[in-house]
Amino acid sequence: MKLNCDLGESYGAWTMGQDELVMPWIDMANVACGFHASDPLIMHKTVAMALEHGVEIGAHPSYHDLVGFGRRSIAHTPEEITALMLYQIGALEGICRAEGARLAYVKPHGALNNDMMKDPSLLRTVMASVANYRSDLALMIPITLDHSAHRALACQIGVPLIFEAFADRAYDDSGQLVPRTQSGAVHHDPATIVAQALSFATNGGVRSVSGQWLDLPAESLCVHGDNEHALAAVKAIRDALQSAGQ
Amino acid sequence: MKLNCDLGESYGAWTMGQDELVMPWIDMANVACGFHASDPLIMHKTVAMALEHGVEIGAHPSYHDLVGFGRRSIAHTPEEITALMLYQIGALEGICRAEGARLAYVKPHGALNNDMMKDPSLLRTVMASVANYRSDLALMIPITLDHSAHRALACQIGVPLIFEAFADRAYDDSGQLVPRTQSGAVHHDPATIVAQALSFATNGGVRSVSGQWLDLPAESLCVHGDNEHALAAVKAIRDALQSAGQ
Amino acid sequence: MKLNCDLGESYGAWTMGQDELVMPWIDMANVACGFHASDPLIMHKTVAMALEHGVEIGAHPSYHDLVGFGRRSIAHTPEEITALMLYQIGALEGICRAEGARLAYVKPHGALNNDMMKDPSLLRTVMASVANYRSDLALMIPITLDHSAHRALACQIGVPLIFEAFADRAYDDSGQLVPRTQSGAVHHDPATIVAQALSFATNGGVRSVSGQWLDLPAESLCVHGDNEHALAAVKAIRDALQSAGQ
Amino acid sequence: MKLNCDLGESYGAWTMGQDELVMPWIDMANVACGFHASDPLIMHKTVAMALEHGVEIGAHPSYHDLVGFGRRSIAHTPEEITALMLYQIGALEGICRAEGARLAYVKPHGALNNDMMKDPSLLRTVMASVANYRSDLALMIPITLDHSAHRALACQIGVPLIFEAFADRAYDDSGQLVPRTQSGAVHHDPATIVAQALSFATNGGVRSVSGQWLDLPAESLCVHGDNEHALAAVKAIRDALQSAGQ
Repeated sequence: MKLNCDLGESYGAWTMGQDELVMPWIDMANVACGFHASDPLIMHKTVAMALEHGVEIGAHPSYHDLVGFGRRSIAHTPEEITALMLYQIGALEGICRAEGARLAYVKPHGALNNDMMKDPSLLRTVMASVANYRSDLALMIPITLDHSAHRALACQIGVPLIFEAFADRAYDDSGQLVPRTQSGAVHHDPATIVAQALSFATNGGVRSVSGQWLDLPAESLCVHGDNEHALAAVKAIRDALQSAGQ
Repeated sequence: MKLNCDLGESYGAWTMGQDELVMPWIDMANVACGFHASDPLIMHKTVAMALEHGVEIGAHPSYHDLVGFGRRSIAHTPEEITALMLYQIGALEGICRAEGARLAYVKPHGALNNDMMKDPSLLRTVMASVANYRSDLALMIPITLDHSAHRALACQIGVPLIFEAFADRAYDDSGQLVPRTQSGAVHHDPATIVAQALSFATNGGVRSVSGQWLDLPAESLCVHGDNEHALAAVKAIRDALQSAGQ
Repeated sequence: MKLNCDLGESYGAWTMGQDELVMPWIDMANVACGFHASDPLIMHKTVAMALEHGVEIGAHPSYHDLVGFGRRSIAHTPEEITALMLYQIGALEGICRAEGARLAYVKPHGALNNDMMKDPSLLRTVMASVANYRSDLALMIPITLDHSAHRALACQIGVPLIFEAFADRAYDDSGQLVPRTQSGAVHHDPATIVAQALSFATNGGVRSVSGQWLDLPAESLCVHGDNEHALAAVKAIRDALQSAGQ
Repeated sequence: MKLNCDLGESYGAWTMGQDELVMPWIDMANVACGFHASDPLIMHKTVAMALEHGVEIGAHPSYHDLVGFGRRSIAHTPEEITALMLYQIGALEGICRAEGARLAYVKPHGALNNDMMKDPSLLRTVMASVANYRSDLALMIPITLDHSAHRALACQIGVPLIFEAFADRAYDDSGQLVPRTQSGAVHHDPATIVAQALSFATNGGVRSVSGQWLDLPAESLCVHGDNEHALAAVKAIRDALQSAGQ
């Protein structure tokens, strides 16, 4: 079970997150590509830091919306989605190349990620973009109860999939994240977070808010490092996984 | 003697140039990478059009300045230059990859091009960026009387060079382009343009405005296609070169 | 009956439209404010040209989306809408002030315009933004069969309204424009365009595609000047209105 | 002696500074206008906060360079400078108007500020832009030993001037700030900072690093609030000025 984290989200003179503190604890860095955050210099620094810590590098492409941080849906044609995916993936790999590194995977950011999970044709376009870039480049998507269908589609299109889950978010009976607007959507208790991480790692799923078992065989957990509590949770998850031999 | 042309310089709803008219007549397309012009979709269309016509694809990276079209100097650290070069080169190659294509060369745009020809440390940084991206990726720079020194430096850094010259611009005795602010800087007479193209192609140089011979062994001529006269000149140069067996 | 036209839609080195050709024929210039098109210099030139021709100046604010030309919906909070409206209105009036001019009205652009006509709370926010900027600043909106309700709402909020209609677009029975995706949505025949303009001007309405009379008492007609045919239509409408004493 | 501070420098999801902590201690807020920092919503919030604390609002216009935070020189024609000044001033005043507020002054930011102090024709353009916007709108510029000449020029152009000085920066014998690259350029000792503030306030000048007296009758001190030490210095300056009856 690998830990992935959104990083490289600073921009110009503005700092976001505390990448240097969280990098030692994670396995996979989702690096912003300049469309919702980051700029070429920050991308370079983030890639260098990831390499130093032996962390896999993933592209974190987004709709082009700096002021909205990529969190707002913007309608695109499939051709536009393909082009903006390839542009951002290539841009980050360009920076990786100079360090002798290679992108391992792609994880769409924010509204693009949400939209593709709701719109099968968009998901197909995203998958095809990644597949057409390089056949061994993986796509990371949130795991849902449709994971088998997603796996089958990815297989047909020719893109390796990585399913991610969340240790600090409650799941409803349909296997979706409880919306942040509802109470109980986010776990704050470290013990609950660690228990959910272990459940994903050792049991391949988690119980929903109503207590129903959800089969969600995720391969990676998305963690956050932007504050003290988040960072403490990352370390606690890491320790628990290690103790559990994961 | 190959003809190169700046292309893909539209942006969103704005059109610039007449790429589809000039593409059949050139050998090398310098494709804007989104920092002074172009967007991912336009880059995709330009790449597809180049492939259709068997035209080599080059990245045309720039300072990040859309409203100024990359024509204004902006101070950067070497680290910033390296990162913005790699970002743009990678972005365009990302789009090429999905078409099974590969970048052949890089030609810096506008103020970045001018600045690197005045500042040896910037030129060195630009060369190293291209070399670090991929060892067989060439850098196109304007030819000057310093071409041997430039060749030696590029050799040392490990980047193949392509020297370009201008058929429609007058050269002064120092081998520099006569500034556009001076009269006679730009040739408008088709015969003069064709003669200068042939001189570069067959004699490896050109006479300066004062009649002095300049040894300028260029490998490519930069042409323009954004208006009827420019397009006619491209065709005339192409015909003349063909007749001359170049 | 006044003619209004979207102008100042160039950006940096990119030209759009032919403002200098259409300006002499219109009464009201909807000037882009930098969020979907235009930059401060182009805004200045457009304002100066409008003043030269005695054309009223209106702000044409938009979602912030240059590459999408403001044509894509982007979700905003009411506070964000208010702030982006005031920012753009103020920016254009800042440029007007230096010429001793004043904004006469505001016409939202593209997706913002479409969205406010579908979402009553957004329309209310837009109206309040204009009213809070200056009490005698008018808001231009497309006329529909709800014009009385819109007038009442505007009156309550305290913003003068200007209703605009289209001479070159077919209306359906509900008083909406026939979508461009349907055939017959756009009139190309000059006689039809002129007849529709005269119908709005002298009869306060128009017949729908099915022949039903629509009471649409518009005060301005939106015209285009970006090509030869459009420009010819503007002149024909102007002549016909003049002959009809409008 | 008034205290001025650069505020509203956050952007979208990125936070910079701690505006709410420093606002109660200052007299004048230099509010970023979206070209180097800030967006319409942040401008609105900053204006509202300034009004709450009875702080005068000034526009802080910049070259258009978000990723460079307006710190890099970019060549402009006088027409471009005028247009970008008016655009940003108007945009902020648009946001002020809805709150029933008015801009009191304009202070150019970063590289634009530095450049205008080196280039008399640029300073003249900046002065004329402010004067043409509104005759009672003041321009804030750093005080130098040329203050009488600057005052005379401003008087001729018709713009009220406000001279600002720095309590935490050392001055050289020519009345210029010691460059940050030199040791001793920035005062860190609170007592030194307070003493320099008092010297400006009560003696109309300060001693240079070599001990020479500099006549620098500033009307405002530029303070910072982006960290704990800076904030403590602001409070100490405020207390000392109050005790001194300034």
